[in-house]
Amino acid sequence: MKLVTIGCVRSGHFEQKGTPIQAAYGEEDARVEIDPPYREALADLDGFERIWLLVWLHDAREFRPKVVPYLDDVERGLFATRSPARPNPIGLSPVLVRSVDVGTGVIETGPVDFLDGTAVLDLKPYVPGFEAHPDSRAGWLDRVDKSRNRADDRFRRPGK
Amino acid sequence: MKLVTIGCVRSGHFEQKGTPIQAAYGEEDARVEIDPPYREALADLDGFERIWLLVWLHDAREFRPKVVPYLDDVERGLFATRSPARPNPIGLSPVLVRSVDVGTGVIETGPVDFLDGTAVLDLKPYVPGFEAHPDSRAGWLDRVDKSRNRADDRFRRPGK
Repeated sequence: MKLVTIGCVRSGHFEQKGTPIQAAYGEEDARVEIDPPYREALADLDGFERIWLLVWLHDAREFRPKVVPYLDDVERGLFATRSPARPNPIGLSPVLVRSVDVGTGVIETGPVDFLDGTAVLDLKPYVPGFEAHPDSRAGWLDRVDKSRNRADDRFRRPGK
Repeated sequence: MKLVTIGCVRSGHFEQKGTPIQAAYGEEDARVEIDPPYREALADLDGFERIWLLVWLHDAREFRPKVVPYLDDVERGLFATRSPARPNPIGLSPVLVRSVDVGTGVIETGPVDFLDGTAVLDLKPYVPGFEAHPDSRAGWLDRVDKSRNRADDRFRRPGK
């Protein structure tokens, strides 16, 4: 299982503190720059309103099984949170597509919850018929105040 | 960027041919078995109706920038498809949660589109407020017949 970097996120977020904790809470548009070997594979992507960005969360601290997530005050099992401190720190966000330039590999996007310089692992089209479940029950996240939606340093890798 | 296996998918799918191409098209329930170091992190997951399964698609052939996807008859850019033949063969599916046993690490799930024995990389809670966009435009996938929703061998790694 060996990963390759296919591109890079360009965003206005330079440290975890203050970064929106989900793309849905972001305000500034961003950009994804895809490396030359992968640009031809961007064909047809501009027909999609949203794409999934899969990235490597390089700045996340090591995995711990229980964490206090941003939106709660008590410990939760890590897999029941979207904390970046995961065994495999893969970030997943659906982002709006503003434009796709296959030639230069530039995708102008809506807001992201990723730091500037984050490595991109994959792009997938967002397909409502496969994955939009608006009424899906969401455990503890159905019961919390979602106004505290900016990150702090709790999940940051130490010593950086 | 180094991946670890956190568990394994147990499904009734033993070869790509005939496997549903998305979890949404599956019929048989499945199971995820999480390895001991990660089981404590399953706490609170049973409150969620669905989880994201992120897996390593070990049986996928190498990346090609254009592919003829299962649901179309013409070539599309790979990133505008959900073909497994990606630079990083990471599979992503939202699956129904039937039960979670933190002690044994067993998650009984709804249908999956993954082969039996597939390595699990991550589990994330499905949160409608973050990622349910039922009206999102879906390019070429909005215009095709979706009744051909079983895989064949076109994306299979040769020589296996």
